Amino acid sequence: MIGTGLIGTSVALALRENGVRTYLHDRDPAAAATAAARGAGVLGLPSSMVDLAVIAVPPSSIAAVLAECQANGLARCYTDVGSAKTEPLAEAEATGCDLTSYVGGHPMAGGERSGPVAATADLFRDRTWALTPLTCTRADALRSVMDFVGMTGARPLLMTHVDHDRIVARTSHVPHLVASALAASLAGADASVLRLCGAGVKDATRIAAGDVALWTDILRANATEVSKILSEIATDLASVAHSLQSDPGEVAGLLRRGNSGRALLIGEPAGVGNG
Amino acid sequence: MIGTGLIGTSVALALRENGVRTYLHDRDPAAAATAAARGAGVLGLPSSMVDLAVIAVPPSSIAAVLAECQANGLARCYTDVGSAKTEPLAEAEATGCDLTSYVGGHPMAGGERSGPVAATADLFRDRTWALTPLTCTRADALRSVMDFVGMTGARPLLMTHVDHDRIVARTSHVPHLVASALAASLAGADASVLRLCGAGVKDATRIAAGDVALWTDILRANATEVSKILSEIATDLASVAHSLQSDPGEVAGLLRRGNSGRALLIGEPAGVGNG
Repeated sequence: MIGTGLIGTSVALALRENGVRTYLHDRDPAAAATAAARGAGVLGLPSSMVDLAVIAVPPSSIAAVLAECQANGLARCYTDVGSAKTEPLAEAEATGCDLTSYVGGHPMAGGERSGPVAATADLFRDRTWALTPLTCTRADALRSVMDFVGMTGARPLLMTHVDHDRIVARTSHVPHLVASALAASLAGADASVLRLCGAGVKDATRIAAGDVALWTDILRANATEVSKILSEIATDLASVAHSLQSDPGEVAGLLRRGNSGRALLIGEPAGVGNG
Repeated sequence: MIGTGLIGTSVALALRENGVRTYLHDRDPAAAATAAARGAGVLGLPSSMVDLAVIAVPPSSIAAVLAECQANGLARCYTDVGSAKTEPLAEAEATGCDLTSYVGGHPMAGGERSGPVAATADLFRDRTWALTPLTCTRADALRSVMDFVGMTGARPLLMTHVDHDRIVARTSHVPHLVASALAASLAGADASVLRLCGAGVKDATRIAAGDVALWTDILRANATEVSKILSEIATDLASVAHSLQSDPGEVAGLLRRGNSGRALLIGEPAGVGNG
């Protein structure tokens, strides 16, 4: 396990529950020590080649870490857990990494808390874990990574790295920025404002508590897709702000599209909430 | 109780638990009948003057309903539960309503579900209930409405109608539109998109399921304040969309402000989530 933050440590804890021998490394020794103290595995790198190295570092560091691990012959196969796939892959290719033994991965789990202290062995149970193999990926590498995902309790879902990044821009990266902008509009609020905050705004801003450095890294690694969707939402909001008084039809149209999107998301027919 | 939707019926159920005799009226007879069947009170208007009439209709109907109730001598005091206060008040004044017996009100409770079927007696327990008396408000009217709020389990909070509308624009109306725009960006998504939706986007879009007609009415009634804040958020998002690749400092700045707003909202020191 290279990187023992929330995801890396949770993965290691899940593997330990399956009786797998795990080694923990983090560029921050305190993070690795905390993970080890939580029972996530043995501190330090293994002395001989292991089956799988899981690279659990921010997207911008994946290629460099993969290159270093491969140069040291650390493992037979490699995977990562980054929220963006195309840019790290392009960097890995440019760095001369062996892409036949590497399968990109991304578990649909996390939380607004981070670090090894927040880790749990069941973080991935019944979650989707996207895997983005290439045509050059070795069959045994893909099998090994799929087995590994299965041990965490997650369901592997194969897709291209391009589809992955296009989709998570919409389902995760843009929502993070929108929730952050909403929460930012409450920064500096006084007590009277807070007393009029209900459950709605609390839910809508929960993910805005995420780690700033990690999310800056994620958003940059998927900038093109995120920018496109975010611009559309910004235009929607600016347009409604402009026509709120003059054109109730436009406001109602946005709310109706919101109803549809929400119904789809939770698997209900639209309009069920309007009794 | 004039209007037996989610809020009106929940209020009536709470009053019934306090042994108060309640009468139920709704322009939709089926809604009133459903509320009565749920034990919220007696169907129909009272035959003689009652202590308090609670007007639980959308903001744009409040003034007309208040005028009609007062013309019929329905009650000694009046309150409402509308999410916007200034515009209905101006309309009531223009219509010639008696404002000395009327206290504007707004409970900080609700839900993405609506209608009498979703009502519960404890909807307001420990919630803030804003009251916006005027200098001309009769002392006995304010006392009567404050007693009534206490019976629902909510905590009355007195403020001016101008402060109220300015604050709820930020804490409720703008969040509703932002969540709707985010949910709208998922409308028409296919199954592969939905499989990559985690808890984050689900929480961030929960309130987007709200009733379209009611929310169009609320947002129009507070259009000036809502437009101002919504424009700022739209500008924030457009700016980040534009600079995502070129200026990570701006993205980090927005995320940091989001951290601050969120920390304030849940009463935590900022940065606690970044372990």
